[in-house]
Amino acid sequence: MNIAEDASSPIETDVAIIGAGPTGLFSAFELGLLAVSFHIIDALPRVGGQPVELYAQKPIYDIPGTSVCSGQELADGLMKQLAPFKPPLHLGHRVDGLERQPDGRFLLTTHQGLRLLSKAVFIAAGVGAFEPKRLKLDGLNELENQHLFYRPPDPEVLSGQQVVIVGGEDLALEQAIDLATRQEARPARVSLLYRRDGFQAEPATVERFRSLCAEGKIDLVVGQAQGIDASEGRLTALHILNVEGHPQTVSADKLLVMQGFTPRLGPIADWHLAMERKQIVVDTQKFQTSEPGVFALGDVNTYPGKRKLILSGFHEGTLAAFAVAEQLSGAPVHLQYTTSSTQLHRLLGLSTS
Amino acid sequence: MNIAEDASSPIETDVAIIGAGPTGLFSAFELGLLAVSFHIIDALPRVGGQPVELYAQKPIYDIPGTSVCSGQELADGLMKQLAPFKPPLHLGHRVDGLERQPDGRFLLTTHQGLRLLSKAVFIAAGVGAFEPKRLKLDGLNELENQHLFYRPPDPEVLSGQQVVIVGGEDLALEQAIDLATRQEARPARVSLLYRRDGFQAEPATVERFRSLCAEGKIDLVVGQAQGIDASEGRLTALHILNVEGHPQTVSADKLLVMQGFTPRLGPIADWHLAMERKQIVVDTQKFQTSEPGVFALGDVNTYPGKRKLILSGFHEGTLAAFAVAEQLSGAPVHLQYTTSSTQLHRLLGLSTS
Repeated sequence: MNIAEDASSPIETDVAIIGAGPTGLFSAFELGLLAVSFHIIDALPRVGGQPVELYAQKPIYDIPGTSVCSGQELADGLMKQLAPFKPPLHLGHRVDGLERQPDGRFLLTTHQGLRLLSKAVFIAAGVGAFEPKRLKLDGLNELENQHLFYRPPDPEVLSGQQVVIVGGEDLALEQAIDLATRQEARPARVSLLYRRDGFQAEPATVERFRSLCAEGKIDLVVGQAQGIDASEGRLTALHILNVEGHPQTVSADKLLVMQGFTPRLGPIADWHLAMERKQIVVDTQKFQTSEPGVFALGDVNTYPGKRKLILSGFHEGTLAAFAVAEQLSGAPVHLQYTTSSTQLHRLLGLSTS
Repeated sequence: MNIAEDASSPIETDVAIIGAGPTGLFSAFELGLLAVSFHIIDALPRVGGQPVELYAQKPIYDIPGTSVCSGQELADGLMKQLAPFKPPLHLGHRVDGLERQPDGRFLLTTHQGLRLLSKAVFIAAGVGAFEPKRLKLDGLNELENQHLFYRPPDPEVLSGQQVVIVGGEDLALEQAIDLATRQEARPARVSLLYRRDGFQAEPATVERFRSLCAEGKIDLVVGQAQGIDASEGRLTALHILNVEGHPQTVSADKLLVMQGFTPRLGPIADWHLAMERKQIVVDTQKFQTSEPGVFALGDVNTYPGKRKLILSGFHEGTLAAFAVAEQLSGAPVHLQYTTSSTQLHRLLGLSTS
């Protein structure tokens, strides 16, 4: 259900969940089992997050116990699982305010006028919590999603093309390595443009990148983009000012700009949450950020050993849910099993006793 | 497949996985995706571990993305997912030796004559890694699984019965609380027998237990069990020596002995792995024990925030698999997605290129 808002007094709930992707939906399910109330907000008009946006119809093979499902099927399965708790969803809502109140609670506001007062916040916004830093050149915006991309497009889009990647951090280098070594749908040429000949990336990634440059599989271009050539709505070349201050032209069919992300969560950026390599730092006991009561789950967080896998988001959301339940009750919460607990069966709507 | 053994030279593999429950099976799947070889050993004659042993036909509601499945269906789903890697299984094999070799590898031997030489060991043996401490009284063994239990039986078995729980740690107290407060299939009477009036358990659990005793919902009996009365194969009473040294008789239909567990992993007990409350202590980056190369996954381990949930075992097994892959390759292993990686598709048998 999509909830109607009353601007006069905020909705009160235990947990505001930002993000209706797999991690947000499953953490809501766990909160439901723990009898903790929640509301879910997402900027997108539908649930499912990244798997639905990026690969709704493509198979995923590593959801435990499910040998294959599409992104859409995963979202459908999680919504069916969550259904007993009648999840209050606010879709198409972009968070534009999040402030600690004098009583310790959080007031979350959205661009669309929703006001939500919660005791804890789960940031499960995945890549949606950040927006890519844009490349500003005359005439470039019009080419977006056709010839200019801020996230990797379908492999087929780059097949046989002259691809220029812009950036010098891990994501850019990894993308160049991936394109230069893929077995199918390989580009005709892979170039990487960065302002200097030195990178902010994992040493092993840099080493692999350098060796592919040495093999002639990646062209490294050091300089600054100054402008583009386009013809009939197609990108043809990129104009560069190289390190010696001389102009240079690089043929380009497709431009992949990966020069990092800036937080999109508006005011929360002012809180100075501990960050590391553009991820929010959390502990591994509660998955809480450096701000008490604010938890970060799924692809948005980092901790030693972190892998950006959906199944890890499920674990993280579950431990965060237990942490909040204990905080709210002020006492240890004992684990009950869905197989045997009559209390959980009641919450799941399976028994009325 | 069940592998035939050759006693002369051991089988060599990267990882020996002890336990074919959900955690063992899914960690094998992740090792497969990382192109790390493995063998799986389980003392039981079938895969699936605790969910299959304890609730093969009962519904589980908290496997992420699967709104309901039985223990057997979960095991079937995990085996189907693992099938591309043709898992080498050694079922009905009880580990009776595990020794570090001069070259750093581990030699694992089973009671049935299997010899396995591996570079790492995953202990994913759940409750099977330990055996309950038995209560030794004349005539008691014959009543096991009918009137004497070392693990909680189906709730119906205790319905309307005079139940005596033996033990003073968390599990015993939690069991007493659960039985005394359950809504359905409640016993006629719940007693707890312990040698002293003081418990080795969480303060909150002790407090809850004491308040149920005060309400008359649990009878606390302080003393030592000395003998039983049985009639026509049925338990009728327990003879106690109380703290004052006087004999006492407690009516009992069912006896639930929960006085802790002893490690069953034979020689590994001599390694003095760090333990905490009968669980193996691991880090949350690799889920490695205090012994390098030995990992503990699922219900057998503990770390801050640990909840004994199947979904946490999936996460733990995955991070352990990545840790081993990095250790074996000597380099960082980059995450690839099953949706997009041609290398993973090849490993999954989805493409032949």
